[in-house]
Amino acid sequence: MMKDWHMLPAEIEAQSMKIIEEELGEISLPPLHKEIIKRVIHTSADFEYARTLRFSPQAVQAGLEALQQQAVIVTDTNMGLMGINADGLRRLGCTKQCFMADPEVKAQATANGTTRAVAAMDKAAALQGPLIFAIGNAPTALLRIQELIRQKKCRPALIIGVPVGFVNVIDAKEGLMKMPVPYIVAKGRKGGSAIAAAICNALLYMAIRKK
Amino acid sequence: MMKDWHMLPAEIEAQSMKIIEEELGEISLPPLHKEIIKRVIHTSADFEYARTLRFSPQAVQAGLEALQQQAVIVTDTNMGLMGINADGLRRLGCTKQCFMADPEVKAQATANGTTRAVAAMDKAAALQGPLIFAIGNAPTALLRIQELIRQKKCRPALIIGVPVGFVNVIDAKEGLMKMPVPYIVAKGRKGGSAIAAAICNALLYMAIRKK
Repeated sequence: MMKDWHMLPAEIEAQSMKIIEEELGEISLPPLHKEIIKRVIHTSADFEYARTLRFSPQAVQAGLEALQQQAVIVTDTNMGLMGINADGLRRLGCTKQCFMADPEVKAQATANGTTRAVAAMDKAAALQGPLIFAIGNAPTALLRIQELIRQKKCRPALIIGVPVGFVNVIDAKEGLMKMPVPYIVAKGRKGGSAIAAAICNALLYMAIRKK
Repeated sequence: MMKDWHMLPAEIEAQSMKIIEEELGEISLPPLHKEIIKRVIHTSADFEYARTLRFSPQAVQAGLEALQQQAVIVTDTNMGLMGINADGLRRLGCTKQCFMADPEVKAQATANGTTRAVAAMDKAAALQGPLIFAIGNAPTALLRIQELIRQKKCRPALIIGVPVGFVNVIDAKEGLMKMPVPYIVAKGRKGGSAIAAAICNALLYMAIRKK
């Protein structure tokens, strides 16, 4: 096993991607989608995402354009925030934000009797610049974004809707997929902050290559 | 859907756990293991963990004892670190540490031609207090911990070995399960920083209840 200690992370990643590619086999996927799907499988070792990740038409292009225009990526967990490649963001002049621990958000959530995730989305909707929402945890965040769009209070460049869970999660995702907005969704119960971050990173790496 | 916005996170969690319990069905699991497995499924919506999570005898007890004695939880990603409940740690007088972004660790890794994860484990091995390693990402971290134990440079209270991936991951986990140390392992390729954090949190909540 010793020899592998000297494999660089980049080599390990390249070998992993090759294995994923092989095991995906003959599945036909649009190249831009495939790159995102492969990174999600790399993060989860779960090939189910090859058939559950759904992309609205032009979703990837919309995400890439936003990242080329100093986008802000908004997450619903600090864990998801931490997983988004800071160096990649810096190279593109983009930033990331999570308001879940924001004192103002806590106060608003208490005052309105909502989850903090809802109040965090309200605050994020007021941010400048193209917004990419990367929701891996709170279905209430995803429901709130849909409401903000309907109320014309927010027009996200892309919504990554991959909350994980058993309550409200499927409804929130199915609702999003009915809206005329660019989305990337993991159908069903699966997802998570690590999945949301992996999708952001796949987009970041693509945007950097195109620079 | 509106009514659900007013569900408290604690209510959502309780309902989720009930659904998980129901879907686990008749599977017979030791109660202490079951609580951890349920939290991992809560985090991943992946019931495969019910059969892939493996516990050495007394692993949970070892983890709980460490948490009652001001343990340090060491992670191999800042994302995993972020996922561990800070309030739970505080209530028990425990702490968490990740050395992946530590400049000294970066320099050591370069000097020795190892991954940063290896150098981070070397640094962590010198920490005071019962150590719980929570490895969700780097198989090289898990291999290094095994070597440190063999060299009697470290004696962890518990090793949570749940790296995800396609290269070295299965070897690193199988190697750990042959060692005479308390471990919790996700057999196979699956795992991740969120899984590692979920296992830590399940242990934290159990330790707080026992206080």
